[in-house]
Amino acid sequence: MPATDAPPSARPDARPSGRTADALRPVSLEPGFSRHAEGSCLVRMGATEVLCTASVEGRVPPFLRGKGEGWVTAEYGMLPRATHTRGDREAARGKQSGRTQEIQRLIGRSLRAVTDRAAMGEMTVTLDCDVLSADGGTRCAAVTGAWVALHLAFRHCLRMNIMSAMPLRDQVAAVSCGLWAGRPVLDLDYAEDSKAQADANFVLTGGGGLVEVQGTAEGAPFSEAQLLELLRLARAGTAQLFARQRQAVGLE
Amino acid sequence: MPATDAPPSARPDARPSGRTADALRPVSLEPGFSRHAEGSCLVRMGATEVLCTASVEGRVPPFLRGKGEGWVTAEYGMLPRATHTRGDREAARGKQSGRTQEIQRLIGRSLRAVTDRAAMGEMTVTLDCDVLSADGGTRCAAVTGAWVALHLAFRHCLRMNIMSAMPLRDQVAAVSCGLWAGRPVLDLDYAEDSKAQADANFVLTGGGGLVEVQGTAEGAPFSEAQLLELLRLARAGTAQLFARQRQAVGLE
Amino acid sequence: MPATDAPPSARPDARPSGRTADALRPVSLEPGFSRHAEGSCLVRMGATEVLCTASVEGRVPPFLRGKGEGWVTAEYGMLPRATHTRGDREAARGKQSGRTQEIQRLIGRSLRAVTDRAAMGEMTVTLDCDVLSADGGTRCAAVTGAWVALHLAFRHCLRMNIMSAMPLRDQVAAVSCGLWAGRPVLDLDYAEDSKAQADANFVLTGGGGLVEVQGTAEGAPFSEAQLLELLRLARAGTAQLFARQRQAVGLE
Amino acid sequence: MPATDAPPSARPDARPSGRTADALRPVSLEPGFSRHAEGSCLVRMGATEVLCTASVEGRVPPFLRGKGEGWVTAEYGMLPRATHTRGDREAARGKQSGRTQEIQRLIGRSLRAVTDRAAMGEMTVTLDCDVLSADGGTRCAAVTGAWVALHLAFRHCLRMNIMSAMPLRDQVAAVSCGLWAGRPVLDLDYAEDSKAQADANFVLTGGGGLVEVQGTAEGAPFSEAQLLELLRLARAGTAQLFARQRQAVGLE
Amino acid sequence: MPATDAPPSARPDARPSGRTADALRPVSLEPGFSRHAEGSCLVRMGATEVLCTASVEGRVPPFLRGKGEGWVTAEYGMLPRATHTRGDREAARGKQSGRTQEIQRLIGRSLRAVTDRAAMGEMTVTLDCDVLSADGGTRCAAVTGAWVALHLAFRHCLRMNIMSAMPLRDQVAAVSCGLWAGRPVLDLDYAEDSKAQADANFVLTGGGGLVEVQGTAEGAPFSEAQLLELLRLARAGTAQLFARQRQAVGLE
Amino acid sequence: MPATDAPPSARPDARPSGRTADALRPVSLEPGFSRHAEGSCLVRMGATEVLCTASVEGRVPPFLRGKGEGWVTAEYGMLPRATHTRGDREAARGKQSGRTQEIQRLIGRSLRAVTDRAAMGEMTVTLDCDVLSADGGTRCAAVTGAWVALHLAFRHCLRMNIMSAMPLRDQVAAVSCGLWAGRPVLDLDYAEDSKAQADANFVLTGGGGLVEVQGTAEGAPFSEAQLLELLRLARAGTAQLFARQRQAVGLE
Repeated sequence: MPATDAPPSARPDARPSGRTADALRPVSLEPGFSRHAEGSCLVRMGATEVLCTASVEGRVPPFLRGKGEGWVTAEYGMLPRATHTRGDREAARGKQSGRTQEIQRLIGRSLRAVTDRAAMGEMTVTLDCDVLSADGGTRCAAVTGAWVALHLAFRHCLRMNIMSAMPLRDQVAAVSCGLWAGRPVLDLDYAEDSKAQADANFVLTGGGGLVEVQGTAEGAPFSEAQLLELLRLARAGTAQLFARQRQAVGLE
Repeated sequence: MPATDAPPSARPDARPSGRTADALRPVSLEPGFSRHAEGSCLVRMGATEVLCTASVEGRVPPFLRGKGEGWVTAEYGMLPRATHTRGDREAARGKQSGRTQEIQRLIGRSLRAVTDRAAMGEMTVTLDCDVLSADGGTRCAAVTGAWVALHLAFRHCLRMNIMSAMPLRDQVAAVSCGLWAGRPVLDLDYAEDSKAQADANFVLTGGGGLVEVQGTAEGAPFSEAQLLELLRLARAGTAQLFARQRQAVGLE
Repeated sequence: MPATDAPPSARPDARPSGRTADALRPVSLEPGFSRHAEGSCLVRMGATEVLCTASVEGRVPPFLRGKGEGWVTAEYGMLPRATHTRGDREAARGKQSGRTQEIQRLIGRSLRAVTDRAAMGEMTVTLDCDVLSADGGTRCAAVTGAWVALHLAFRHCLRMNIMSAMPLRDQVAAVSCGLWAGRPVLDLDYAEDSKAQADANFVLTGGGGLVEVQGTAEGAPFSEAQLLELLRLARAGTAQLFARQRQAVGLE
Repeated sequence: MPATDAPPSARPDARPSGRTADALRPVSLEPGFSRHAEGSCLVRMGATEVLCTASVEGRVPPFLRGKGEGWVTAEYGMLPRATHTRGDREAARGKQSGRTQEIQRLIGRSLRAVTDRAAMGEMTVTLDCDVLSADGGTRCAAVTGAWVALHLAFRHCLRMNIMSAMPLRDQVAAVSCGLWAGRPVLDLDYAEDSKAQADANFVLTGGGGLVEVQGTAEGAPFSEAQLLELLRLARAGTAQLFARQRQAVGLE
Repeated sequence: MPATDAPPSARPDARPSGRTADALRPVSLEPGFSRHAEGSCLVRMGATEVLCTASVEGRVPPFLRGKGEGWVTAEYGMLPRATHTRGDREAARGKQSGRTQEIQRLIGRSLRAVTDRAAMGEMTVTLDCDVLSADGGTRCAAVTGAWVALHLAFRHCLRMNIMSAMPLRDQVAAVSCGLWAGRPVLDLDYAEDSKAQADANFVLTGGGGLVEVQGTAEGAPFSEAQLLELLRLARAGTAQLFARQRQAVGLE
Repeated sequence: MPATDAPPSARPDARPSGRTADALRPVSLEPGFSRHAEGSCLVRMGATEVLCTASVEGRVPPFLRGKGEGWVTAEYGMLPRATHTRGDREAARGKQSGRTQEIQRLIGRSLRAVTDRAAMGEMTVTLDCDVLSADGGTRCAAVTGAWVALHLAFRHCLRMNIMSAMPLRDQVAAVSCGLWAGRPVLDLDYAEDSKAQADANFVLTGGGGLVEVQGTAEGAPFSEAQLLELLRLARAGTAQLFARQRQAVGLE
C-alpha cells in the first residue's frame, strides 16, 4: 500500500513538519536554568527556546501602594539572532515594537489570572521571557514556561517566609493552533504559522477555563465551527503542557 | 407591582446603563466629517466618539515595493481629555503606549481582512482613528467607522481613476461583549467594562466570518459556553452596525 | 458698470477668499463640546476647527509649590489629517516639533497674562488645543477658544467652591493679519498665509492691551507703518471675537 | 547737590545695570574665532557670549532639491554652565527644549530674510550659535553674530568660486528692549529681563525694515505707544550693531 | 601542620574564589549553540555565560561602500536577570547605557584587529554578545567567544563560496586581571572585581601582540611594575583560552 | 650636511607636526574663563581647546545618600563645528554617542581617583568639558583642564566654609601617545592620531601612579616593549602638564 509508505509530509495537505494535526512539538521545561533568579525555566517547544525568569521585589507599582496586594508583570524580548535573519536589537533602536508590547501584556495578564494577588502581600514578581531561538509560538511557550518560573519563585518566597500561602490558584499554559490547508492543526511552527489561513492563541487554566483567546484571520475569515475545533485542539495540547509543568515543579 | 415600576437599573444584576443585555448604545456614523481626507467618518457609540479619516498615498512600504499590491494601515490616538481624568499626551511623552500600538495593529489587520490589496495597486491608505470622547469600546468603534472612511476613500480613488475596481470585498465591524454579573451583555460602556468579569472584542465580516476574536478574563476564567454566548450577541450587534455602515455610504 | 458686477476675487489684488481686507471668516464658539472636561470650546474660524479643553488638577508644578499660586499651561496638537496632505503623527514620531512647542508656549503665556494666579490657589489648569481641521490661523483660534474653555473651567471651580473668586481679570483673543499684495488684510486663511509677504499674530486683551505681538517678514521686511496698520485691523477683529466670547460664556 | 553725586543705580527707577535707558552694553564682534568653520564670530554683549559658526555644505534639504536655491538654517545651544546655576545638558536629556527650538527657528528666519537664496545655488549654510556665557539677550546676540559668520562664509565661497555673487542683500541685527519700572530701556541684561514688565525682541535690517517683532507682556499688557517707543530704542541700538558688523567684516 | 589544613580562602589574602593567583575559572566554549546564526558560541567562564552569534550580511555601512572591504561590528546586551538583582531592560528604558556602548565598541575593535577586511569583500559580520549569566568578566568572555563565532561564520562563507580566503589572520582573546589584597590575580569574578584595587582588561592576539589594554585604578593608583605583572598573568591566561578556541573550531 | 638643513617634516618618518617624538604641543591653561562656574579652565593643547567648568551642588546621587561622601562626575560635549567638517549636534539627534559616554566616564573616574570623597561631604561636583576646537587629544586635555577647574571649585568651597579640608589628594593629568611610522611619539594631534598604528591614553597622578591606561592597536598589535616606551613618553609629558596645572592654580 504505497500511501502508507509515503512520508506524511508528502501528502498535499500534510503539515510541513510532518506532524499529525493534533501533535505538539517535543516539549522540554528545564527548571532552575538561571543562576540568580528566584525562579526560572528554559522552555523548549521544538526549535523555539525561551528563557523565563521570575524576579521578586518587595514593592508594588504606585497604583497598588497600600492596598495589601501584589503585582505580577512581564517583559518579553528576543535576541537579535533568535530568528532566521538577524533582527534589530530593540535596545539599540531605542524602543520596543508594538508586537513586543502586545506580547508582554498578554503574558502578564495570563499569569495574573491564576494568581491570588492578595496572598502575595505587597510584592512584585517580574517575569522576563527572552527568546533565545524562535520557530513560532514564542508567546505561548513564554506563558507556559513563565508559570513554572513563577511557581518556583513563590516557593522560594514561602521557604524564606516572605509569603505564607502559595498565591497560585491554578496552572496556566498556552498553545497556538491554526488552519493549515483548511484543517485545524495544533502548535504551529514558524513555517506553518507564516502560511496558515488563521491562527489562534489560547491561554487555558488547569481547570479548563479560558483566560485569553486571540484568534486572527490571515486571509479569509474563519467560522465559529473552526474556532471551536481550534479550541478543542488547544485543550488537548495544554493538557500535555500542564502535565509537564507539574513534573517540572515536582508536583507529580 | 412595585417590581415592574422599578427602573431596570435598580435590579441587582441590571447593567449600569439600564440597557437590556442585547442592546447597543445609540449609534451614529457621520460620513465626510473631515474637510481634507479622501474618506472620513465620525462614529459615535453612546458617549464614545472617534474620528476616522482615510488618507491615500501613491506608494507602499518597502516590503511591498514592486509587488503590485497596496497596503492598509492604521494609527490610533486619544485626545488627552477624551477621558474622565486627563491623560498624558503621547506626543509630549515621546512614545505611544503598548495599548495604543496594540489597538492600531488590530484596526489595520481588521480592514486588511476585507480588502483585495491586489485591486489597490501600489497605494497605501492610512486610517487615523482619533478618540474625541471615550466611554468604552473605542477600538471597536474605530474599526466600524474606519470601514466607512475606507469605503469612501476607495470610491474617491475610483472616481479619480486611480483604481479601477472597488478593493473592498465585504464589510467589517466590531463590538465588545462581556460578562456582567455573570450574564453576557452587548456593547460595554466604560462603567461596565471596568467591572466586567470578562470581555471580548469581536471583529466580524458582513458575510458572518470571524476576523478577530480577543477574549480576556479579568477575574475568573470564562467557559466555552460563555464565549459562544458572547459571540451570539456580537453577531446580533454587528448586524445592526452593518446596516448603519451601508446607510452611511449610501448602499441602501 | 461691469467692474462692479465682477466678484471681488476677480480683481488682481483681491484676497483669494474674496473677503474684504477687514473681514473675519465666519466665527463660531461652541462651549461645552467635550463631555468630560471642566471647560471646553470648539472654535471655528472658517474651515479651521480647534477643540479646546480645560482640565483642572489640584496641584502645581514643582517650581510653584508652597507659593499659594496656581498655574495655567497649554498643549497643542494637530490630528494627522487636519491638513490637506496627511502629516506625521507626533506621538508616532516620538517628539513634538519646534512649531508645536512654540505654539503651546504662546497659548500658555497668553492665558496667564489675564489670569490672577493668586486667586486660583495651588491649582493647575491645562488647556489642550487640538486642531481637527486646519486652514490657517490655528494658534490664534486656539487662544480665542482656550479663553472660553478656561472661563468655563473657572466657573466650574467657583460652583464647586474650589475657588472663591474668578481668577480671569480680562478677556484675551488673537488674530493673524498679513500683507497680501502689499495691502494689510485681517484673518489670513491658509491660501493667503502661504503667500503673504508678512504675517503677524496679535494677542490682545479686552481692555485693549497687547499681550503678544509676533510679526514675521516672509519676503521683504515690513515697515513700522505697516505694522501699525496690521495692529489696527487686529483691534477691529478681536473686538468681534471678544463679543463672541462673551456670548459663548453667557456674559451678554 | 547730593542728588547728582548719587550713582545712577541709586535712583528708584534706575536700571540695575546703571546704564541709561538707551545704552547698549559693551559690544564686541570677534570674527574668525573658530579654526575650522568657513565663517565664525564670537559675539559679546556685556557678559553674554555666543560663538557663531557658519558651516557650508554642497546640498540642500529634500524640499529644495532641484530648485536651484540654497538654504540657511540655524541651531542653538547653551553650555550647561553658561548660566548662574548649571542647567541640564540637552544632549544628555535626549531632547531640545521648546525654548531652544523656538530660538533656532528665529535665527534661521532672520538670516534667510536678508539672503538671496537663488544666488547661493544648491548649498546649505548651517549657523551654530552656542552660548558660552549667558546674561540675557542671547538670541539677539546670536542673530547679530550669525550675520558676521554668514557674511564671512559667503566670502569664503566667493573666493573658492563656489558662488559667483554675494547672496547677502542687507545686514540684519537684533536687540531686545523692555519696560523697566514703566520706562522703555534698551538691551536688557538678565537681571533686567527677569523683572521687566514686558520685553520685545526686534530683528531689523540695515535698510530699516522689520524682519521680526516678538513682544511679550510678562505682567500687565503693554500699549501701542509703548511698543513704538521700544521700537525706536531698537532702531538706535541696531544702528550701532550694524556699524560693528561692518567693521568686523572689513566693510568700513 | 594546621596551616596546610586550612582551606585556601581562610588565609587573609586569599581570593574569595579560593583560586590561586594565576588560575582561570573553568572555561567552556560551545560552538554552534545558535540554530540560525552563521557562527555561534556559548562561552562560559565560571558562572559567566555569554551567547555570541555571528550574522553575515551582504552589505557594508555607508562609509565603506565601494571600497571592496568588509566590516565587523558588535552589539552587547545583558538579560535583565543575568545579574544578582534584576536590572532594567535597556529596550524598555529606550536606550543603551554608556557601559553597554563602551563594551560593544571594544568587542568590535578587538575582532577587527585580527581580521583582513579586504579578504571579506563588501560583507558585514555583526557579533551579538548577550550575557545570559553574569559573574564578572563578561566583556572579556564576549571577545573570546566572539572569535569562535566569527571563525565559524567565515568558514560558512568559505563553504558557500561567498569568500575565497579566510579573513582571520590570528586569534584574539581577552581576560581581566586585577590587584587583590595587593597581589595580582587572574580572571576576576564579580566578588573579586567589586573589591579589587585595580583591574585591567587585556585583549591579546595568538601571536602575543597587544590589541587593547584597559587598566583602571579603583582606589589608589597602580604602578608600572604592577601593570606588567598583570600583563604577565594575562599572557598565561589567554594562552589557555587560545587552546580552547582552537579546539572549539576544530583546529587541533 | 643637507640632511640637517631639511625641515624635520621632510624626513620620511617625521611627524606631520614636525615636532620631535617627545614634544608636547603648546599648552595653555586659562583658569577662571567661565563667569558663573565655581571653578573653570580653558585648556589648549595646540589647536585643541576644551572649556572645563566645575559646578558644585549640595546633594549627591541616590546611591550615596546618607553616606557622608561626595561625588565627582563629568559630562563631555563637542560643539558641532569644533571639527573639520560639521558633526551632528547630539542634542538635536536626541542622544549622546557611545564615544561621548565613554569619554565622560573616563574623565569622571580620573578625577575621582585623586579626590578624597569623604572630605567633600554630601556635595556633587559636575565637570562639564566642552570642546570648542578639536585637533586630537580632547579627552586628555579635558582631564588635565578639569583638574584645574575642580581645584578652583574646591578652593571656592573652602573659602565659603562649605568644606573644611581640600579633598584633592594629588594632581591628575592625561596625555595620548602613539606609534607613528613605528616610533613612539608624544601628544598626537588629529593628523597623527588618524594614521597612528596604535594609540594609548595615559592618566597619571602627580605621584607617578597610573590611574588609567587605554591602549588600542589600530592596525597591527603592539608589543609590551612599545607599551612601555609610550608610558615613558607619557610620564615626561604629564610632568610638564603638572607644572602648568600648579601655575594655573597658583601653587608655584
